[in-house]
Amino acid sequence: MDIPEKIRSSLYLYNSLSRKKELFEPLKPPFVGLYVCGPTVYGDPHLGHARAAVTFDVICRYLRVLGYKVRYVRNITDVGHLEHEETEQGEDKILKKARLEELEPMEIAQRYTQSYHRGMDALNCVRPDIEPSASGHIIEQIELVKKILRNNLAYEVNGNVYFDLKAYSETENYGELSGKVLDDLKSGSRDTAGMDDKKNPHDFALWKRADKGHIMRWNSPWGEGYPGWHIECTAMSIKYLGQQFDIHGGGLDLQFPHHEAEIAQCKGAHGNAPVKYWMHNNMITIDGAKMSKSAGNFINLEELFNGEHQLLDQGYSPMVVRFLILQSHYRSKIDFSAEALQAASKGFSRLLTSVQMLDKLPDGEAATETETDREIEELCNRCFEVMNDDFNTAKALAALFELSSKINSIYHGHLSSDQFSGRVFPMMKETVRLFVFEILGLKSETETEAGNKIPELIALLISIRKEARERKDFATSDKIRDELQKMGIQLKDGKEGTDFELDS
Amino acid sequence: MDIPEKIRSSLYLYNSLSRKKELFEPLKPPFVGLYVCGPTVYGDPHLGHARAAVTFDVICRYLRVLGYKVRYVRNITDVGHLEHEETEQGEDKILKKARLEELEPMEIAQRYTQSYHRGMDALNCVRPDIEPSASGHIIEQIELVKKILRNNLAYEVNGNVYFDLKAYSETENYGELSGKVLDDLKSGSRDTAGMDDKKNPHDFALWKRADKGHIMRWNSPWGEGYPGWHIECTAMSIKYLGQQFDIHGGGLDLQFPHHEAEIAQCKGAHGNAPVKYWMHNNMITIDGAKMSKSAGNFINLEELFNGEHQLLDQGYSPMVVRFLILQSHYRSKIDFSAEALQAASKGFSRLLTSVQMLDKLPDGEAATETETDREIEELCNRCFEVMNDDFNTAKALAALFELSSKINSIYHGHLSSDQFSGRVFPMMKETVRLFVFEILGLKSETETEAGNKIPELIALLISIRKEARERKDFATSDKIRDELQKMGIQLKDGKEGTDFELDS
Repeated sequence: MDIPEKIRSSLYLYNSLSRKKELFEPLKPPFVGLYVCGPTVYGDPHLGHARAAVTFDVICRYLRVLGYKVRYVRNITDVGHLEHEETEQGEDKILKKARLEELEPMEIAQRYTQSYHRGMDALNCVRPDIEPSASGHIIEQIELVKKILRNNLAYEVNGNVYFDLKAYSETENYGELSGKVLDDLKSGSRDTAGMDDKKNPHDFALWKRADKGHIMRWNSPWGEGYPGWHIECTAMSIKYLGQQFDIHGGGLDLQFPHHEAEIAQCKGAHGNAPVKYWMHNNMITIDGAKMSKSAGNFINLEELFNGEHQLLDQGYSPMVVRFLILQSHYRSKIDFSAEALQAASKGFSRLLTSVQMLDKLPDGEAATETETDREIEELCNRCFEVMNDDFNTAKALAALFELSSKINSIYHGHLSSDQFSGRVFPMMKETVRLFVFEILGLKSETETEAGNKIPELIALLISIRKEARERKDFATSDKIRDELQKMGIQLKDGKEGTDFELDS
Repeated sequence: MDIPEKIRSSLYLYNSLSRKKELFEPLKPPFVGLYVCGPTVYGDPHLGHARAAVTFDVICRYLRVLGYKVRYVRNITDVGHLEHEETEQGEDKILKKARLEELEPMEIAQRYTQSYHRGMDALNCVRPDIEPSASGHIIEQIELVKKILRNNLAYEVNGNVYFDLKAYSETENYGELSGKVLDDLKSGSRDTAGMDDKKNPHDFALWKRADKGHIMRWNSPWGEGYPGWHIECTAMSIKYLGQQFDIHGGGLDLQFPHHEAEIAQCKGAHGNAPVKYWMHNNMITIDGAKMSKSAGNFINLEELFNGEHQLLDQGYSPMVVRFLILQSHYRSKIDFSAEALQAASKGFSRLLTSVQMLDKLPDGEAATETETDREIEELCNRCFEVMNDDFNTAKALAALFELSSKINSIYHGHLSSDQFSGRVFPMMKETVRLFVFEILGLKSETETEAGNKIPELIALLISIRKEARERKDFATSDKIRDELQKMGIQLKDGKEGTDFELDS
């Protein structure tokens, strides 16, 4: 579908940095650089991963539909993410899991990267174009730390390198993204009790010394160690998207300190802000409560799909989960509950049923444009308008449901054929399919679900054959047996009735 | 299945290094370190990739069935593999593809890594436990080069570092794996015309200077550059399996110079041979000819599966391709042809049909052990014996086919129930399933194929309903319509007959 320039040039998105909606103007059109924070691969993917991935998947899909050439980079964090993010203390998350499961850290990373891929593939998320791993970019991170040191915005203590927030704050505003005001930076207080070698408690690690027994370690100008958590995203986004790129996305929980640190690191190394538009998706609650392992409401995607969790009576298909996520605007909270999932399941099914009616609509007989024609056209335009208003998938779905009502009314004859001319049908078909399949990334699950219907269908044929034989209608009973045989399905008559077998 | 110690302790494998079959005794039982050379990701996977992957997949599966704890490492080469392997000249393979497709090199690596995964997943190959990439281990490679330099077995010229084969050959035998005798090493001749800065034409690069415009480059003690092709496997196998590990596998085409260089690099850095058992799978020909792009007989897996290649009349399922590969011993050549694929298709189907009969065998009535009982037991034992003889899958399949004949004869009553006692049936069932599914990694494709039968089944029901209506048997015709409706299948009667629709 050719998208009019008018639509393409009127996309607004909410920039977390400016805290307002801004017109989207990429740095080097038609190219768009999109970097999204990916998972720390030490556990199976859960709803939080799903929401971030689906959010930026739709954003990437919409930008591509508008004609932009998007390079989509999403990292894999396989080193440097410590247990206690705020204090930068505790064990490396992957190392800890490796110890608990008695595996090499990279086996953990491999296992959960695959698990993440399976989950996101099931949700029909397009794979990123580049998926760099932190451990695969140690040199790039070291080079960046060296630059920040040269600019006197970091200091080395005992094999650790920390970003110097006091020095940075002399000219820059640490907190510009998150809005946090760090008083102790301004006052220059130095309450660093228990903060190892840091000059200031908010200083964050660029490089950490590896203690004895720490398996993940690399040689560096500061001795053997490993990178801090924040530096990887700066190093990898610069490598693959340049020192300044268009969109950086991630969950709201990453805004501080992770993204705040990314801005400081890039400015500290190169003097410029790295990102034009910062975008953050909001969080997910379960039955109104924060998702946490201790609360027992931590549902991973596998459990959600197969229903094997105490909070669930049944499994929900990946497309229902995706639909539920899209029913909210990405900056709103979503509450997951069995009721919400059931409602999403019905809504998704209703929407797809209308899509299937599209090819079977009767011809319109109105000679001139009617009210219905105009309403349909307006709804098609609205789909683009609401997506252009900060990717509002919730409103796009609402418009699609209004279109869906029209389609139903026409299909079932509740709108008589003289009430519409049908001239807008081609546009409606194209728009509905474009939004449902290409932009929102939904897909029919009938194909796979249909596989389960085979035993039912054969059982019905066996039952009809039995009745035919009882009334001595052997023409019918033989036909059923012979035709099934041609399909490679053998009927086996036994004492307890008829069974069947599929040829392999 | 508990494997008797007798079987576990009598596995012999052919060691390319000693050129004979040796008893398998892992360095630190029950652990086994297995490293296999993976793909250079600049194109879609083809039959050569399939053979290597299936070969070492079965070896890994068999070792695990024997009770070994295998750590399976297979690398992804995403940098350093130049076009002309022998002379180490030409463009980086990935960089060239990136230039041709106007993409960032890492986009190429990502695209073809995914394509490789799809192909190997389809062939039911178990994913390796660790899948390290060359570009993700630059520091490890640099550290190794530094060690070899410190041992005076390498030299730096103009930002390039080469392995010094003359110095190495004073105490070691370069060629011990491949059997190549490099005369010019012995004579010390220095015919290095056109060999850039090499002292000896066979010296290979450990590190290459990146010329201007070479995108893939990293800082090193010798300036900006990139690693040579061979050093990655040494660095990554040492990192994940240790300085000495059990099995190193790969295609025969990699024996020289790649694997020969790996031995030299490890000895050059650490003084010890890296690998206890070197294993090489043989090559594949197409209709008797070497596979090559210029010959037009280069078939990638996707084409093989869907049949879209001039040499193919139809597609062959991944399991048929796997079956064909397993029908030869891994050290024999395999010739792929339409005839061979068709024969494999029939053989695979015959084998699986027998497996499905296993649960439906009649009870034996012989009071004592019979000839048939003994034959079955012997065939079950033979499956292990031939696998223990250098993983001979060809002979294992032959034994399984002999078992298959027995199963057929018993199932169809050609062997009467007094000719067997059936006491060996539990062992036979377990052995056959273990070999077919767990060790050889075959699987029934019925489930996915069955999906295609739905339209046929519904068409049959529609036809029977039509006949019922014609003879005014509305009980039957209504039953068919109503039961289908319950399954979510709507019949639509129209002018041109009856069509159907699946609810989504």
